[in-house]
Amino acid sequence: MIKVSFLGAAGSFSFIAAHKYFQKKIPLLSFLSIKGVFDSLKNRTSNYGVIPIENSTSGSILETYDELLKNKMKISGEIRLRIHHNLLVLGNRDINKITKCYSHPQGIIQCSKFFDRHPWIAPQVTTDTASGACVLSKSKNRNIAAIASSECAGIYGLKITKKNIEDNKNNFTRFAVISHLGNKSGQKATIAFLVKHVPGSLFKALKPYAEVGLNLTKIESRPIFGKSWEYIFFIDFEIKNQISKFIKMIALMKKVTEEVTVLGLYDQSKIYET
Amino acid sequence: MIKVSFLGAAGSFSFIAAHKYFQKKIPLLSFLSIKGVFDSLKNRTSNYGVIPIENSTSGSILETYDELLKNKMKISGEIRLRIHHNLLVLGNRDINKITKCYSHPQGIIQCSKFFDRHPWIAPQVTTDTASGACVLSKSKNRNIAAIASSECAGIYGLKITKKNIEDNKNNFTRFAVISHLGNKSGQKATIAFLVKHVPGSLFKALKPYAEVGLNLTKIESRPIFGKSWEYIFFIDFEIKNQISKFIKMIALMKKVTEEVTVLGLYDQSKIYET
Repeated sequence: MIKVSFLGAAGSFSFIAAHKYFQKKIPLLSFLSIKGVFDSLKNRTSNYGVIPIENSTSGSILETYDELLKNKMKISGEIRLRIHHNLLVLGNRDINKITKCYSHPQGIIQCSKFFDRHPWIAPQVTTDTASGACVLSKSKNRNIAAIASSECAGIYGLKITKKNIEDNKNNFTRFAVISHLGNKSGQKATIAFLVKHVPGSLFKALKPYAEVGLNLTKIESRPIFGKSWEYIFFIDFEIKNQISKFIKMIALMKKVTEEVTVLGLYDQSKIYET
Repeated sequence: MIKVSFLGAAGSFSFIAAHKYFQKKIPLLSFLSIKGVFDSLKNRTSNYGVIPIENSTSGSILETYDELLKNKMKISGEIRLRIHHNLLVLGNRDINKITKCYSHPQGIIQCSKFFDRHPWIAPQVTTDTASGACVLSKSKNRNIAAIASSECAGIYGLKITKKNIEDNKNNFTRFAVISHLGNKSGQKATIAFLVKHVPGSLFKALKPYAEVGLNLTKIESRPIFGKSWEYIFFIDFEIKNQISKFIKMIALMKKVTEEVTVLGLYDQSKIYET
């Protein structure tokens, strides 16, 4: 039986992403850290994990890439969500009486204009947005609010007193579905490769992708600590199920890089509203 | 007379970076947002700004890149700091009596293991780490702490009760010194360029750098919202004052991209401790 681990408490954006991806009613297990989700796959508590991998305003979630490499896990799916934040309360609808508001640091950063406009509301950090909603529902304190998904309102019996309070309405997060083995085909691929820090090394590493005619959709370099003259690159390609082209490209890349790791083949996600 | 704007209150990491870079005693002006620093240059309140551009654990500060492009400002210097976080208090040295702790959301995230080990201390968000230290110094409450730089202890008359409480000891932040005109030479260059979303377009755009023999040290792609089939790339090069090679490369790149913008030429920074 399939079990899926996700980041945060029930109602978190990873939880919503897991529900969009695994449409049947399957057990979802909550973990409060990205490492916790990876550990649950390692010790076979679950078969899949759902974690954030990229946000449109804050960039790549480097911890997710690090853990993928460290644990030799694969990306087997993606889900893209438009992130809407909502002000949830126990029932007190007068915003002037709210004194404190729970949320994850990222939720607080993404709603900073809301806090500028309501300086009497002190943001209070929780491990994730949904945990804040959960703590609020138990507190019975009508002067406290939480910033979380609209899904949390239903789960924790809270009222949405202000909708869509995020600063940037184009606030998207891409989630990765991770598993031990990954897929054998897909519309997209994510790979990691290492090159030496010499002139032209990235260019040589990218020549195979241009030769076989695949389309790059994301690239990011990271210096490797302790190996200050080596770089690791993370690249996403559109392969549109042209798996033979992809296999040819990887074989060519292996000749001109220090190391190539396929992090996964998976289908592209549409954007879901939250 | 030179005036320098920086992000945060006195004692912030941008403040420390500004002090390392502008060694003479020049006026430093505090702004509580990256946009505020850019605005102060635009309206000629200051000549230079010092803001974070990249963190080793959370990646590029995309807002800084966006504002550089939007305001047509240049990077004219860089400073790299190893970020150490400290627990500052008014005088109460018994950690069991601390109930609340001020810091910026990034400071709280970067010290999450500290909060796991001390669950009775509730993190409380402030606009930046140094502002938290400032609020604490005014509060006179000995049961409150702040997570901030050791510099803040001296500035706000606080005591360091725990040193280096960050999770990751290799926690580096790179700061950019920004100005209207930038420099005409330097050891490093940062550029931005646009390419169409067709197979091989990035490869073609990178060909000039390999041809002239420059060394790439950072690359990052970003989709452009509203232009979903165009990508912007941000690239850092080591040019080691070979300015003629660099000029040749930019001329070649202009032929194979939609747009190229030099974001600045500047000297490489050593790593300073904080």
